[in-house]
Amino acid sequence: MKKKSSSPTMKDVARIAGVSLGTVSNVFNGIPVSEPYKIKVEEAAKELGYQINRYARGLKTNHSRIIALILPSTSHPYFGELASSIQHSLIKRNYQTLLALTNSSYDIENRCIQMVSENKVDGIIALTYNPDLEISEDLPFVSIDRFYSHSVPCVSSDNYGGGYLAGQKLYERGCRKMLFMNTRPDTNGEPDKRQIGFEAFCKVKGISCESIITNDEVNIKPFKGMLQERTHDGKPDFDGIFCNTDFIAYHVMNILRSIQIRVPEDVQIIGFDGINIFNDPRLPAVSTIVQSTDQIAESAVSILLSGDRSKIPSLTCLPVYFRAGGTTKE
Amino acid sequence: MKKKSSSPTMKDVARIAGVSLGTVSNVFNGIPVSEPYKIKVEEAAKELGYQINRYARGLKTNHSRIIALILPSTSHPYFGELASSIQHSLIKRNYQTLLALTNSSYDIENRCIQMVSENKVDGIIALTYNPDLEISEDLPFVSIDRFYSHSVPCVSSDNYGGGYLAGQKLYERGCRKMLFMNTRPDTNGEPDKRQIGFEAFCKVKGISCESIITNDEVNIKPFKGMLQERTHDGKPDFDGIFCNTDFIAYHVMNILRSIQIRVPEDVQIIGFDGINIFNDPRLPAVSTIVQSTDQIAESAVSILLSGDRSKIPSLTCLPVYFRAGGTTKE
Repeated sequence: MKKKSSSPTMKDVARIAGVSLGTVSNVFNGIPVSEPYKIKVEEAAKELGYQINRYARGLKTNHSRIIALILPSTSHPYFGELASSIQHSLIKRNYQTLLALTNSSYDIENRCIQMVSENKVDGIIALTYNPDLEISEDLPFVSIDRFYSHSVPCVSSDNYGGGYLAGQKLYERGCRKMLFMNTRPDTNGEPDKRQIGFEAFCKVKGISCESIITNDEVNIKPFKGMLQERTHDGKPDFDGIFCNTDFIAYHVMNILRSIQIRVPEDVQIIGFDGINIFNDPRLPAVSTIVQSTDQIAESAVSILLSGDRSKIPSLTCLPVYFRAGGTTKE
Repeated sequence: MKKKSSSPTMKDVARIAGVSLGTVSNVFNGIPVSEPYKIKVEEAAKELGYQINRYARGLKTNHSRIIALILPSTSHPYFGELASSIQHSLIKRNYQTLLALTNSSYDIENRCIQMVSENKVDGIIALTYNPDLEISEDLPFVSIDRFYSHSVPCVSSDNYGGGYLAGQKLYERGCRKMLFMNTRPDTNGEPDKRQIGFEAFCKVKGISCESIITNDEVNIKPFKGMLQERTHDGKPDFDGIFCNTDFIAYHVMNILRSIQIRVPEDVQIIGFDGINIFNDPRLPAVSTIVQSTDQIAESAVSILLSGDRSKIPSLTCLPVYFRAGGTTKE
């Protein structure tokens, strides 16, 4: 650890480099300067341990190079992975990440958006749970999974295509009596299209598809009774289940096994998200439709930072794929 | 969404409020002003939609009210939970969180520390993997789990006590032939004391305790062969295992079950961390010694922000507790 006596200033850098203060300022602000001068300034700055004051910079160039990331939390594995992916996409482009977590509360989400605006961030990437937030048009904003208005670009996985794909994969593995299971959707978001895609596939094939949807956003307790009602003499009246998330699929797998229904022998299950237990690829939670958080992150960041906002797609849906994880016959 | 014509300035606020520019500045900078003036300024600011420019503020008062949080990632469940807890502890105190993720790389960790310093954050909370980082004494810094020097305060769980407690819990449940299992520790950190505490308990009780430690930081593959070597005619020569993390414990549970050793009937396992699958308290990964990320966060943040740094403990060890999760006989 080095103890510094006092912080060097731009004037000190100019003196040591033997150049004008204006030249130093130009170098630090990325304004072109002839190469020998640039090298002199950089060497002097290094020698002095001069650190560029990005606040002063933010005032001058009106860029803080900080992006706010608004998420419900980082404790859920999908959000934790998404936060990592977005931070990596930003740091690659020399942007830093201001993290704001909301627990999905309307008040906190609104306050976050106000607060990060005050902080003069260069933009916001947000996965929110309240469709009626006040989003200022002054600030570049990219929404993940949620529709706000035509002028707020949204990045999402191909949820409709993923639901359709889940149907195909269950069908190929012999399932003919399908169930769709979800807790009550809490927002009009892109993920609601998973069910629509799944039902569309079943319709095309002319096979049955019923929905089991609880009355509650998080409570999965009613599922056990609902599944038992559909089981007669130990035989379920369904053989394939598509669940809206891996979280639900994992619970449904446990429920079925607890009532002596074998997974995947009697009933096959596919979830959605691509969660690995402990984030370890050797430990897939269930068979799943995988969302690529890396692709979502790259897309959201490049849309946010793109100069010409007139040509940005209002909705970008990224590809998903199927991955076996023990709840399907491979 | 409201469209603003142009951003109001402090001058506009002063004009609408009918006060001097200095009064407006004092209010925004938290300098005491008589109540009627304060209200006038706040109402004018609200009416105009004036947003306090925190960069300008940062320059003036030398506080950005931003704390950098340096972590390996947010994808691992423990780090994801820790990030959530720390962000909550900071926001409660009206501080924002700049998130920097390092993948445990020395270069990235060092660059992060430099970068966040440039950003004039008010301090750093870091869980790092490289004990020889350059930490400037100019910036308040709190380390989680890692020892740097006597002058860098460290916050951690009571790892020694937790290891000791794991021994007690296995002993109370009948275990007499203990194993400690870990991948090679990658740093001289607080978590290394888990093994020491566990071995100390076994010594006190006069029971056997052997260590199985792989040669690799992340590779848990060798564990299977190592455990098979200690199993003769289907009978293991051990009955209690303490693993350094829940991640290892979860893999060990799977390995034992795959070679027909019953968990918890034949062998009981305790991990360390307190991980729930999908962060759902109904889904504990294994029986475990729980670390409270909320307590770690509160402690790290209050130490970081405490005014008088002369009285800060150099190491703060927070209490842990045992929680059954299916790999012990309750």
